Amino acid sequence: MILDIGSISLDTTTTPFKTATEIMGGSATFFGLVASFFAETGLVGVVGDDYPEEYISILEERLDTRGLVVEKGRSFRFDSRFGYDLGVRTTLKTELNVFGDWSPVIPEEYADAEYVYIGNIGPEQQLRVLDQVNRPKITVADTIEFWILNQREWLLELISRVDGMVLNDEEVRQLCETPNIVKGARAILEMGPDFVIIKKGEHGAILFTREMIFPTCGYPLEEVVDPTGAGDCFAGGFMGHLARSGDLSRKTLREAVVYGNVMGSFAVERFGVERFLDLTMEEIEGRYRKYKSMVSF
Amino acid sequence: MILDIGSISLDTTTTPFKTATEIMGGSATFFGLVASFFAETGLVGVVGDDYPEEYISILEERLDTRGLVVEKGRSFRFDSRFGYDLGVRTTLKTELNVFGDWSPVIPEEYADAEYVYIGNIGPEQQLRVLDQVNRPKITVADTIEFWILNQREWLLELISRVDGMVLNDEEVRQLCETPNIVKGARAILEMGPDFVIIKKGEHGAILFTREMIFPTCGYPLEEVVDPTGAGDCFAGGFMGHLARSGDLSRKTLREAVVYGNVMGSFAVERFGVERFLDLTMEEIEGRYRKYKSMVSF
Repeated sequence: MILDIGSISLDTTTTPFKTATEIMGGSATFFGLVASFFAETGLVGVVGDDYPEEYISILEERLDTRGLVVEKGRSFRFDSRFGYDLGVRTTLKTELNVFGDWSPVIPEEYADAEYVYIGNIGPEQQLRVLDQVNRPKITVADTIEFWILNQREWLLELISRVDGMVLNDEEVRQLCETPNIVKGARAILEMGPDFVIIKKGEHGAILFTREMIFPTCGYPLEEVVDPTGAGDCFAGGFMGHLARSGDLSRKTLREAVVYGNVMGSFAVERFGVERFLDLTMEEIEGRYRKYKSMVSF
Repeated sequence: MILDIGSISLDTTTTPFKTATEIMGGSATFFGLVASFFAETGLVGVVGDDYPEEYISILEERLDTRGLVVEKGRSFRFDSRFGYDLGVRTTLKTELNVFGDWSPVIPEEYADAEYVYIGNIGPEQQLRVLDQVNRPKITVADTIEFWILNQREWLLELISRVDGMVLNDEEVRQLCETPNIVKGARAILEMGPDFVIIKKGEHGAILFTREMIFPTCGYPLEEVVDPTGAGDCFAGGFMGHLARSGDLSRKTLREAVVYGNVMGSFAVERFGVERFLDLTMEEIEGRYRKYKSMVSF
């Protein structure tokens, strides 16, 4: 089982083409909907009692939601706007609401999960998750700029305790205080984890271990609608492929990074999680094969 | 034979680590020194009579310099500075000098060259080069923002007459007025050429033809000293491999893009052209093989 811990939000997203209001968002939502294509996935998150029934149904259909808590109050809301080239996001409003004081509780039934992904919540809370799982095969965490700047000590402890970190290039530069991401990745590996993945958006992702570097390109897309959640979808494809393969060989890790790129590319084709509601495993495998033949030489 | 037409300059380059004063620079210099590893390369360019003897010797040692003109006056000088992360270059001074009024003359002996690369000179001059070559197997041109903004009509004519364009991502966005480079590449293909290569610096390059897209990653480097010339070195590796292979098959084109990345990665390891002065073919092939095994999955 894959454990998916993170935020669940109602996103209002404005692009040059459209504004989508209070759609499904949050790291756990994106990750979970993607990972569930590959293996059984258990969600751990919190929403308010205003969270739409319809969204709950979508989560329940695809995920084990025994770890989903509905609390009295308003759900986490996140408003943002993308500029002309969809490259830069401006945050318009962040309302943490019930998510603000939430401390993740891992249900007894999930404690033996082998694949644990802890998306963007505070590093102190991420550490509490690690305390509640028995002996996962692999633990992977993400973080954001806010925690790098404001909870550096907790974050360094987290990094020393997980097997893998998934970060974007800007976060690596900030965390490691170097403009060079290869240097940054090596510095993070020295903090403890077995691997680091640096996500570079449309430019793909690079996997670093102590013995290898595996750089990959993004899947080229002619139409990008909404980049929200692409990073978590990357992680969902990555962890999903690891879980269904059942091994952590060098070969599987590399394939998993490519599945990460593939799932990230689907994510941005429509607003929010929309693309995953009618996506099929056949389309996923088809794009994986297409990617593979595209980049071969 | 590869024909190499472009600028030859004396560059003063400042990075956070060092200032290098009046070193060898210019598109034809970088391209030629790289291409000459792969096949006989003829240089067509102009310098002033103050251009150092020592630099002339380096060019003569490696290139056919029958197309190199030494004019009375000062050589083209280019001063620039890179910021903290070596990502953004600020131009401090551009002194065109003898390069300003230069119109390239292709020596009779070069007129049958099969591989023609026209680096950054004005599109009107680039078109004059095309008029002077007999029937090359392949013509490839580069351009810069300045010409896109100021000589658009000439540039569009040039694009309609060459076999391939090599541009960076920002140039494609400007030329095609779209933030999406895949769309941009398709728009350029519609203007006439058989292929377009979009260079993305450390993120690699993408080859587009009407039938295929070949995305590649950059070779990951822990130390970048000076990004100047990397794009022309990319083109040198690309054209060089085409010329030594002697065919323009899909397979050769793809390999050539990878050689482009490899040569670009050597370029940035030292200031200016320095890295190419002691580089060996063995190192080039070694890095190509390393790249290939690095990206495979």
